[in-house]
Amino acid sequence: MTLDFWFDFASTYSYLSAMRIDDVASGKDVEIRWRPFLLGPIFKAQGWDTSPFNVYEAKGHHMWRDMERLCGDQGLPFERPDPFPQTSLSAARLALAVRDEPWYPDFCRGVFRAEFGAGETISDRDTLEAVLSDQGVDAAPLLARIDDRVIKERLRAETDEAIRRGIFGAPTFVVGDELFWGNDRLDQAIGWAEAGKA
Amino acid sequence: MTLDFWFDFASTYSYLSAMRIDDVASGKDVEIRWRPFLLGPIFKAQGWDTSPFNVYEAKGHHMWRDMERLCGDQGLPFERPDPFPQTSLSAARLALAVRDEPWYPDFCRGVFRAEFGAGETISDRDTLEAVLSDQGVDAAPLLARIDDRVIKERLRAETDEAIRRGIFGAPTFVVGDELFWGNDRLDQAIGWAEAGKA
Repeated sequence: MTLDFWFDFASTYSYLSAMRIDDVASGKDVEIRWRPFLLGPIFKAQGWDTSPFNVYEAKGHHMWRDMERLCGDQGLPFERPDPFPQTSLSAARLALAVRDEPWYPDFCRGVFRAEFGAGETISDRDTLEAVLSDQGVDAAPLLARIDDRVIKERLRAETDEAIRRGIFGAPTFVVGDELFWGNDRLDQAIGWAEAGKA
Repeated sequence: MTLDFWFDFASTYSYLSAMRIDDVASGKDVEIRWRPFLLGPIFKAQGWDTSPFNVYEAKGHHMWRDMERLCGDQGLPFERPDPFPQTSLSAARLALAVRDEPWYPDFCRGVFRAEFGAGETISDRDTLEAVLSDQGVDAAPLLARIDDRVIKERLRAETDEAIRRGIFGAPTFVVGDELFWGNDRLDQAIGWAEAGKA
């Protein structure tokens, strides 16, 4: 079975899932498809011009503490990026430009680690260049694809598909028509895919 | 250590926690305090006149499916009450009137089971009377306390304390100053209390 892992590079809880999803799926008959999209248009449709964690102060306060505790449990470094949320447009386009490369999941994890593990700014070309270089590839021609019309259109189409599927937050795991929202549902979603229940 | 279990009788995910919290805490050196409050004033302060699951359609759609799956996993019956959310004012007041009784947690579980296990209306006196009778007590004098001035004030004070503590949803578990939001954090919160980490 295939499990679609929908995430936004700006999403804190997507970081937690990105860093463990391949381990959780390891040895199981489940193929993970990493699918970056943009939460911005979805939030905008709900009347928010920023993350709900900024809109609702008490909820945001809890989220930061929750992330500290969960990163501690998961053995992950955690730095709060500034500003939050980061602008994830370039990172998402770049990811879609390299999605057929064998190092694609490593690239995605690298972006998350730079952002939430080291507090770096993922809209900076320098940050993305360093993550690409870590994959042992020539960064320049890949970075140029961020402004490629085909890639821009690809990200719009992915975000449209996310909306069509009823996705309203990230991470979201989709197995067939079954939708699981949140890092807390990762294990359940993988179990569902493994059992071929969709 | 003491763990405060803050819940609203109208809250779907509070049902999941109510039905398992005493089992999870069993054999551990953790005292569970059941603390009903009202989410209504908190939601109102955020600009919502109903549950966010009604305000945000995609989120609501996911919640109902998620509840079906989780109740299935937890071996709990599940019926969607109509209307949703239920008016939990009388149930919360009644709970606060009987909070020193040895059967108090059983009463709370009984209300949740009637509402989400059998789809009953918890603002109906008949429903509350049946739950009380299941505890082997005389319901009439207890039901009269729903309109008691002291009890009304007690619920207002509890809801004020919830707001002051930064609670924005239910269930929420509080250990010392540490706040854990959501049924998904129940085990972590109990572990925290057990380790005396707050």
